[in-house]
Amino acid sequence: MSISIAVDAMGGDYGPPVTVPAAIAAVQAEPYLSLTLVGQKQILSDALAANGARQNERLTIHHASEVVDMDEPPAQALRKKKNSSMRVAINLVHDGHSQACVSAGNTGALMATARFVLKTLPGISRPAIVSRLPGRRGATYMLDLGANVDCSAELLLQFGVMGSILVEHVQGISAPRVALLNIGVEDIKGNDTIKLAAELFRASNLNYQGFIEGDELYTGAVDVVVCDGFVGNVALKASEGLAQVISESLREEFRRHWWRQLSALFALPALNGLRRRFDHRRYNGATLIGLHGTVIKSHGGADALAFQTAIFEAATEVREQVTENIIAELQSMLSQA
Amino acid sequence: MSISIAVDAMGGDYGPPVTVPAAIAAVQAEPYLSLTLVGQKQILSDALAANGARQNERLTIHHASEVVDMDEPPAQALRKKKNSSMRVAINLVHDGHSQACVSAGNTGALMATARFVLKTLPGISRPAIVSRLPGRRGATYMLDLGANVDCSAELLLQFGVMGSILVEHVQGISAPRVALLNIGVEDIKGNDTIKLAAELFRASNLNYQGFIEGDELYTGAVDVVVCDGFVGNVALKASEGLAQVISESLREEFRRHWWRQLSALFALPALNGLRRRFDHRRYNGATLIGLHGTVIKSHGGADALAFQTAIFEAATEVREQVTENIIAELQSMLSQA
Repeated sequence: MSISIAVDAMGGDYGPPVTVPAAIAAVQAEPYLSLTLVGQKQILSDALAANGARQNERLTIHHASEVVDMDEPPAQALRKKKNSSMRVAINLVHDGHSQACVSAGNTGALMATARFVLKTLPGISRPAIVSRLPGRRGATYMLDLGANVDCSAELLLQFGVMGSILVEHVQGISAPRVALLNIGVEDIKGNDTIKLAAELFRASNLNYQGFIEGDELYTGAVDVVVCDGFVGNVALKASEGLAQVISESLREEFRRHWWRQLSALFALPALNGLRRRFDHRRYNGATLIGLHGTVIKSHGGADALAFQTAIFEAATEVREQVTENIIAELQSMLSQA
Repeated sequence: MSISIAVDAMGGDYGPPVTVPAAIAAVQAEPYLSLTLVGQKQILSDALAANGARQNERLTIHHASEVVDMDEPPAQALRKKKNSSMRVAINLVHDGHSQACVSAGNTGALMATARFVLKTLPGISRPAIVSRLPGRRGATYMLDLGANVDCSAELLLQFGVMGSILVEHVQGISAPRVALLNIGVEDIKGNDTIKLAAELFRASNLNYQGFIEGDELYTGAVDVVVCDGFVGNVALKASEGLAQVISESLREEFRRHWWRQLSALFALPALNGLRRRFDHRRYNGATLIGLHGTVIKSHGGADALAFQTAIFEAATEVREQVTENIIAELQSMLSQA
């Protein structure tokens, strides 16, 4: 089976210097993969050449003259940049040329464009952003991570259903454990929306585990955590910020004296082991879930290894037919209702 | 100057085995401090004896027959446990016997009881919970951390005013930098409440810095971060959870082989340096702010060192007259309005 993916090669903080080497490495690593690099033709063929590669049947260039800026307002990108690399990559999914697209570009513009071009799945009010968090025992998927600042209880249930299907197929876990993120585990805790959501989750056929608090996000206690996009975005970024500060502080502590620098050499295997566990590059690639098509958002500051992870995430979701499974499950739910 | 503090000696996951040694150490360390241990008399005098101490003029026992359970509903604790160590400790503040109280008990019960007994300050709709986060350059104070799940823009402004006064007096920073926590730094980001709050903050005499995202909580970029209690609670607990998992993982990595265990010995000074920087015990003690009186909430699982930190936090706030300064500032704001 072959999987074809459109890559927004101009998106992200770095653009082609990251996306092109990542694409080259990805097709080398996975023989089933075909990638279409979308962006300014000359820049991309130069970038291929600079990396000792050229176009071939599994790695092609598709010209798109414009680029969406990282801080461009989503509405403006949608209205005015109809030939952006981001828009054209999404169009390729819509046209059936590619089965998924990957972009490290502006999240808001990507979500707005993907919603406009691909449309939301029947039964889903609004798409969400979902990603894996590294955990002590297995990963936990969290959604929404910032697409929806205000969420009704019904919307949270839709997120739960989509998250559960994603994890079931991508991680091969049957009946994934689903929880609602709250500020206490007792039924009386939280706001009215979360209490109503809890009732809907209990009445659903999800493997609902109840409320969890923020300190359970990294323990692997559940497979899917549902929250509104404001809370999810803050929790994710607070964690990224803390991990960054811990990592920098560790470096500072090991540089404080020459004997500490020496000790760092001995400690290197353990420190590298730690880094591998929490390496955000191994967790790169958030899914825009709830759309007619697979769209993966890479971190804007991703390096080539991280961007490759996002490409593989797209390939996995295509192979496991995540979108098709969500559609089927929603239809079965709607027909039961 | 002498400062007298009532200690809920029965509260927390451990009770007297933690609170009593902490109190003994605190009065030994700070000659200006007088502590009243509130709780079951026999248990407390036994605990003093077990730690080689006895009552004296700076360390007394005040009997209270009941104990609020850690998972007891706040309304029930308020109605039915009128002689709990928590309630009596707060009463001592209300009566003017003590200038502050410290409890490691049930947060909801502590807030409900403190509001009921001490009352909210004029001009403040609802009290908040505020605490320090460890930062790369200086600490950042965040509020609310869970007392208020839904917050109006006006309430967020009140939090900003109280947080700014707290930091000004406790940290000695004039015109502390205040920011709103949001999911993007652009004006268009966030929900209606946060956008309205931003207008109120801009129009206030706070040193308002605009929006910050979750990844700036630990950089020391601002002195005070304001958010609603749901978001603040999740961000704080997610951070605690991540720090815990990183710390456990580091331990696991250093235990993987005997040579890694050996390397850990050499790395110990740097690892201990890291631990000191992020030691939550050095940051223990959240303030219930906006009340007629100083109430400090210790982490339920605090050890004696951490509980002592919370006692010192209470003493600092009394010495720096945080409550009096908030009242004066609110009066001046109200008279200007």
